[in-house]
Amino acid sequence: MKAFDHAAAAAARTHQDSLTKPPGSLGRLEDLAVFMAGWQGRDRPRLDRAQALVFAGNHGVVAQGVNPFPAEVTALMVRNFRAGGAAINQLCRIAGADLSVVPLDLDRPTVDFTQAAAMTRPEVEAAMTAGAEAVDPQADVVILGEMGIGNSTVAAVLAAATFGGAAVDWVGPGTGATGDILSNKLRAVDAGLALHRPETALDTLAAFGGREQAAICGAIRRARQLGLPVILDGFICTAAAAVLTRDDPDALAHCLIGHESAEPGHRRLIDCLQKQPILSLDLRLGEGSGAAIALMVLRAALSCHNDMATFAEAGIG
Amino acid sequence: MKAFDHAAAAAARTHQDSLTKPPGSLGRLEDLAVFMAGWQGRDRPRLDRAQALVFAGNHGVVAQGVNPFPAEVTALMVRNFRAGGAAINQLCRIAGADLSVVPLDLDRPTVDFTQAAAMTRPEVEAAMTAGAEAVDPQADVVILGEMGIGNSTVAAVLAAATFGGAAVDWVGPGTGATGDILSNKLRAVDAGLALHRPETALDTLAAFGGREQAAICGAIRRARQLGLPVILDGFICTAAAAVLTRDDPDALAHCLIGHESAEPGHRRLIDCLQKQPILSLDLRLGEGSGAAIALMVLRAALSCHNDMATFAEAGIG
Repeated sequence: MKAFDHAAAAAARTHQDSLTKPPGSLGRLEDLAVFMAGWQGRDRPRLDRAQALVFAGNHGVVAQGVNPFPAEVTALMVRNFRAGGAAINQLCRIAGADLSVVPLDLDRPTVDFTQAAAMTRPEVEAAMTAGAEAVDPQADVVILGEMGIGNSTVAAVLAAATFGGAAVDWVGPGTGATGDILSNKLRAVDAGLALHRPETALDTLAAFGGREQAAICGAIRRARQLGLPVILDGFICTAAAAVLTRDDPDALAHCLIGHESAEPGHRRLIDCLQKQPILSLDLRLGEGSGAAIALMVLRAALSCHNDMATFAEAGIG
Repeated sequence: MKAFDHAAAAAARTHQDSLTKPPGSLGRLEDLAVFMAGWQGRDRPRLDRAQALVFAGNHGVVAQGVNPFPAEVTALMVRNFRAGGAAINQLCRIAGADLSVVPLDLDRPTVDFTQAAAMTRPEVEAAMTAGAEAVDPQADVVILGEMGIGNSTVAAVLAAATFGGAAVDWVGPGTGATGDILSNKLRAVDAGLALHRPETALDTLAAFGGREQAAICGAIRRARQLGLPVILDGFICTAAAAVLTRDDPDALAHCLIGHESAEPGHRRLIDCLQKQPILSLDLRLGEGSGAAIALMVLRAALSCHNDMATFAEAGIG
């Protein structure tokens, strides 16, 4: 487990104060540069190689009528990712990230969590391993995203299991649920919470699913071992990541929240995690889209940090 | 005066709804694409050529002890811009903007506005013309920024003259004013407001200055004639732009606010203008830095708009 390098972070902070700007005037960009320095263990952090991982899965809970789109759309969107036609393809291209799409047994949805456990422990472990193995150890940062029809319902139940509260505290429209579909989401989440009382991260993932959530957890743990900073995406990605705090409150110390989603539960989740999102653009798409845009802000932060002149170099002061 | 093309904007909105994502799920990115379509008058707006303009000026009000840095720093920072060492140089490079720096009579500061009018009308007109002439008519978007020791004091008095209120409502720390310097800023702004009662944009600029503020106004008006969208930077840039609303409440319809600055008056100014900033990164540097980062978000918006597959193309739905 690679730890945050406080000496590198302190050296980065000192360097920031020598650059040709009033101290602190680059605000969040300065903090991001220091964060990257600490996790990368070098006072001039780099972003030569950014990896974007999008995990996809299908969910038995769609049987409860929780989503306006049919489950087939998950596989169609994976095809769209591979053909380069989705939002995340365009965003990775302009943000300079290498995109890998990892579909997880799309033809084998998890069990409907309102009826029984979504996955067996071996199934959870297999998905976590798939997530861990997808991480490129040579990456300088890892961006995480997801796709899975029905997975905002899974996110809501994972958030409630992790931080407490009922369906009404965590369920939102997701990709566009209203009326009956929204009622079905609320009912499904409360039913899941009544049926399962998991305590560990693994048991929580087994109870509610899904595979892409377990893969996200596996990737985050692997990135931590390697000392790779991570950018999380919106509500669904953050809810998956939050499950890891059940085992270790510090499990997400190497993770940034790329953006605050329009999904109302995301603000609550971010507050529970005591994090600050980088962007707030009313996105509610998933796929890693907000995290990819946040990567551009991270690039801005590091380009200032690494390439600005110091006061001494500029002959000022 | 080129007007917003409502037909192009409507066509852009229709196109957004055909793309492979739930309708509306790209949030602010969709609105930005539609905004660009309307101003550029094409349903697939482009961003091949982004121009960043940084205007620099010096201010007689520095005699009131309103800034921790000496006025000489303005010229030194212009040299730093030209040598490529400042934050804005790095940000323009990674955001893909061509940077032009326009120093305006740095060796001839405006008159101290606590004593008399900062500029004559011909001086204001000359600075506005310099701003207008700096705009590249071939640009697809124009980013505006500024540099000028003492100009957060000028911004505060311009904002108060435009939207009402006293010094205390608009003065903040700027690049780092505390204690006596902050008191001096407050006193200078109230003295200026007591001495001058301008009503038009030109008279307001003449009363308080400065040259870079007048140049920003000139560039904004020219961009409007050409139908070029503009990205404003933080408190100082926005306060300069706001002066134009004294003559025409609609003068900034083609302008986006790139970010919300850490300078407290900026939130108030944004609210007065009924705009929404693209980013909020606690920046308080100026130079166009926040606007340049916002350009990256605009690129994200247009890359999704122009390059995503439609549902029909992807064989979904």
